[in-house]
Amino acid sequence: MAKDFYGELQLGILGGGQLGRMLIQEAINYNVNVHILDPDKNAPCRKLCNKFECGSLSDFETVYNFGKDLDLITIEIEKVNVDALEKLEEEGVIVYPQSRIIRLIQDKGLQKQFFKQNDIPTSAFQLISTKDNLTNASLSLPYIQKLRRDGYDGKGVKKIVTEADIQDAFEEPSLIEEWVDFEKEIAVIVARNDRGDVSTFPMVEMEFNPQANLVEFLIAPSLYGVEIQQRAEAIAKKIADDLQIVGLLAVEMFLTKNGDILVNEIAPRPHNSGHQTIEGNYVSQFAQHLRAIFNLPLGDTRCRTTAVMINLLGEDGYEGLAKYDGVEEVLAMEGVYLHLYGKKYTKPFRKMGHICIINDDRDKAISNARKVQEILKVKA
Amino acid sequence: MAKDFYGELQLGILGGGQLGRMLIQEAINYNVNVHILDPDKNAPCRKLCNKFECGSLSDFETVYNFGKDLDLITIEIEKVNVDALEKLEEEGVIVYPQSRIIRLIQDKGLQKQFFKQNDIPTSAFQLISTKDNLTNASLSLPYIQKLRRDGYDGKGVKKIVTEADIQDAFEEPSLIEEWVDFEKEIAVIVARNDRGDVSTFPMVEMEFNPQANLVEFLIAPSLYGVEIQQRAEAIAKKIADDLQIVGLLAVEMFLTKNGDILVNEIAPRPHNSGHQTIEGNYVSQFAQHLRAIFNLPLGDTRCRTTAVMINLLGEDGYEGLAKYDGVEEVLAMEGVYLHLYGKKYTKPFRKMGHICIINDDRDKAISNARKVQEILKVKA
Repeated sequence: MAKDFYGELQLGILGGGQLGRMLIQEAINYNVNVHILDPDKNAPCRKLCNKFECGSLSDFETVYNFGKDLDLITIEIEKVNVDALEKLEEEGVIVYPQSRIIRLIQDKGLQKQFFKQNDIPTSAFQLISTKDNLTNASLSLPYIQKLRRDGYDGKGVKKIVTEADIQDAFEEPSLIEEWVDFEKEIAVIVARNDRGDVSTFPMVEMEFNPQANLVEFLIAPSLYGVEIQQRAEAIAKKIADDLQIVGLLAVEMFLTKNGDILVNEIAPRPHNSGHQTIEGNYVSQFAQHLRAIFNLPLGDTRCRTTAVMINLLGEDGYEGLAKYDGVEEVLAMEGVYLHLYGKKYTKPFRKMGHICIINDDRDKAISNARKVQEILKVKA
Repeated sequence: MAKDFYGELQLGILGGGQLGRMLIQEAINYNVNVHILDPDKNAPCRKLCNKFECGSLSDFETVYNFGKDLDLITIEIEKVNVDALEKLEEEGVIVYPQSRIIRLIQDKGLQKQFFKQNDIPTSAFQLISTKDNLTNASLSLPYIQKLRRDGYDGKGVKKIVTEADIQDAFEEPSLIEEWVDFEKEIAVIVARNDRGDVSTFPMVEMEFNPQANLVEFLIAPSLYGVEIQQRAEAIAKKIADDLQIVGLLAVEMFLTKNGDILVNEIAPRPHNSGHQTIEGNYVSQFAQHLRAIFNLPLGDTRCRTTAVMINLLGEDGYEGLAKYDGVEEVLAMEGVYLHLYGKKYTKPFRKMGHICIINDDRDKAISNARKVQEILKVKA
């Protein structure tokens, strides 16, 4: 990089939500000049950056104009105008992750084909252009239908169990995937810098909220055997190398009941499955992302202790000015870290924040986390 | 507090330097609306707050107008207009630490008298109005002369060793203190909230840069015996209780060669002797200050590991656009955390940032810190 990260370098982040916000918290330590583009004038990052621009992430001109005087651009969301990023790259602006990777990952169909072409274990799938294709699908029921584009935070995903469900299936071009009867959802975050150093965070275990289809509970490190963990980490490293990505890549996987690991989805940015690294690991995913994109030595990913992460979702049935019931009670508990995302209004299942619970005693970390889940509620 | 800290509450911070900056990094987790007043239009906090106002901290009107629509005001520097804070308090704005405490601590003479009146162990002293008083001082040479007001970061302090030194002594009202032949400079940070909960961080040991008279090297926890640590912590708690302070109080002390502990100075705010708590302790001093002033339960102050803090001072002989020589090399080391303060220009001994080095092996933490000191230089 021609300019020093702590000096004249101007970093743009596409998206000014909670991931951008936590990235800024870390970027403060490095003196980084941060520019944010987000369509929401009340985005969580709006008051925490050198320059905030309100505008569409999908619009070519907006993204291009935002980026043209910057040195380096990164993302906190994949749904951005990639044509603009490509043009910026051609003109010498560095884009990490690279535009070609964002383009690939934006399309869940291309993502799956990439896995297949690169011998990355993943579930059987079929690409379909319209709902009609489902009537003679090559996969047998039940299966998962995912929109190829623009699914986010559990949206754009349907489970098709019976012939009757096909009526309610998505119309748009989508992907159907064999239903995986998994034992556990796991994730590995990997980082790669431009000199080719690759480093993984220890594998984590996740539990999802079935109603919202969002990670609700995450524990790190995993207690699965070393062989499984190394296999998961090797898969993540292979994907990072195959992509030649610069930056973070979150790899979500299924551990099946017979011990297979299948890659579910990947995201080329800081990820919900890595929030516990802030308190739980020597380096956080946010610091690691900065180190990767600035081509600095990667940090020490080891766990300092057991960490549990809970997403703080807007309570079902409440909409309006957020009120955090029980917040004082949970702050009185040992090893509880509150991270609010600067969102004024709550709605059902909106990600309002997360809590990290650490404890050297794993059982205690889990029981404290369950207690926090019971006590702390986002109402209105 | 009538308003929720995460909601409509408006927090003002007098001073927008590195302490304010690290306080904001933590306040982001709590959704706090932060307003900053600082005389420097390029202050480290300027781009990280809801509202930045450039103005004098010493001017009554400026401080009063800054504060009159806020709910809560805190400080990151003592040199502020206390009359304005008093008026704001009368009008219902909460000021933590309370204005009467800031007034007391602004004057090193009053501070010393407070120690004496409250049986807090401190060195013998005398207050003088002009330099002439030194010719028949009650203390014998050598002694330390400190300006009663406005000393900061090692400025406003002189050692008077011989009669001849009196010629170069400060003219202004000052304090002379018996020279303490100490074994170690130690510090304890204590926090107190409005419900009267009091909690200390473990005692730390410090080494000063003799040229700049600034903390250069700090290690936590201390290896001195439990009796000494408990005595130091009890002194800090007593001062917090005597003052009935709300917020943090840093208590700097001398441990003398015969095992006495003498209080040197106190500061009612986050302090350089607590920076290592960010990575080294369960709760950081910045989080603890927020918990105290929001009247929340105080956090867990225990050390997670051994932590060494080094101030990153501008190298002597360099002035201009800061350049951090060796930064990449130190980031490749295990357990090294960089905190830059967002200052564009360096000058000799300017506090440009700090580094925290953690390691479960204390000797390794120290040797890594010494290595960082050798490698990392702030030049221009």
